Amino acid sequence: MHRYTYLKMRSIGVIRTRFIEQAGTPIQGCMAREEIATIEVHEEFMEGLADLGGFSHIWLLYLFNQARGWSPKVKPYLDTVEHGIFATRSPRRPNPIGMTCVRLLKAEGNVLTVAGADMLDGTPLLDIKPCVPAFDHAPVDAIGWYRSKIPEGKVLADRRFD
Amino acid sequence: MHRYTYLKMRSIGVIRTRFIEQAGTPIQGCMAREEIATIEVHEEFMEGLADLGGFSHIWLLYLFNQARGWSPKVKPYLDTVEHGIFATRSPRRPNPIGMTCVRLLKAEGNVLTVAGADMLDGTPLLDIKPCVPAFDHAPVDAIGWYRSKIPEGKVLADRRFD
Repeated sequence: MHRYTYLKMRSIGVIRTRFIEQAGTPIQGCMAREEIATIEVHEEFMEGLADLGGFSHIWLLYLFNQARGWSPKVKPYLDTVEHGIFATRSPRRPNPIGMTCVRLLKAEGNVLTVAGADMLDGTPLLDIKPCVPAFDHAPVDAIGWYRSKIPEGKVLADRRFD
Repeated sequence: MHRYTYLKMRSIGVIRTRFIEQAGTPIQGCMAREEIATIEVHEEFMEGLADLGGFSHIWLLYLFNQARGWSPKVKPYLDTVEHGIFATRSPRRPNPIGMTCVRLLKAEGNVLTVAGADMLDGTPLLDIKPCVPAFDHAPVDAIGWYRSKIPEGKVLADRRFD
C-alpha cells in the first residue's frame, strides 16, 4: 500500500512579467536573460527577504497555475517525440511546481526585480532560495534527450513558445 | 489586497535514506556525494519516469515534512547569526519545499537509486526534474552571507547537522 502525503501550500507573492499568454513566453529563464520581472512578496513574508540583496542569483519556485492536469508523457517544446514528464521541464506535472534561477537586480521592501523571467504574468510564487553554486552546480555529464537539442550545451537566446 | 493562491499537492513517492533524525544528516547533498538513497515512486506515476535514465543528475523537490512551522528569520547551520529565511536553505519555510540535485545511479521500474542524498528517511517526494546546466547553472557572482562560510566556494565533504 502506498501512503500518500497530502499538503496544502499557499502563495507567498506574485510574479509580474510582460507575458500574458504562453505564445511568446521564453521556454527557460536562461533563454531570456534580458526579460525583467517584478516580484511582489505578500507583506507578511517580507521580513524573510532580509539579506537576500547580497545574492546575484536566486531560485524561484512557483506554481504553473495555468497547467490543466498532468500527463505521464509529454512532447516538450524542444523535441518532436514524447518523453516521460519527469525527464522534461513541462508544466504538466503531478505537482505543477516550476523552478527558475533568475538574476536578482534589486531587492527593495517587499518587491524584487529580477532578470531572466520565463513565467506568465500573475504566476503565484511559492518559495525563494539563494542560488549557491557549491550546492547547486553538480558535475553533470549526461543530459539525456536534451543532448541533441541543445547544441554545445547552449540554448538559443531567444527561444520562445510558439 | 493580496490575493493568496491556495493549492493542494500530494507526494509522488517516498525517499529512503539511512538518516532517521536530523543529527548526522548532511546539510546539503553536495556534502554527501557518497550517500545513497532509494526513491520509491508511487506506481501511478511510474510511466512519467520514461527517459530519465539518460540523465546523470536530477533535481528532487520534496517536502520538509518534519519542519514545524516557519520563521521569517533563522540561524542557519553554516552561520552564527540570523538571516532572512529566503536567504537560506533552512527547512523552516512558509512552503516547506526542499530542493537537491542528486546523481542518478539507476532507474529501474518505479525505483531510482541516487547518490548525494541529504534527506531524512521517509521524506515525501513532490517532483523530479532533469538537471540541465544550460538551464540551471547561472553565472553566479555573489553568494551573500555564504561567501565567508564556504571557503573558495567549496564546502566540507562531511559537513553534517549536529
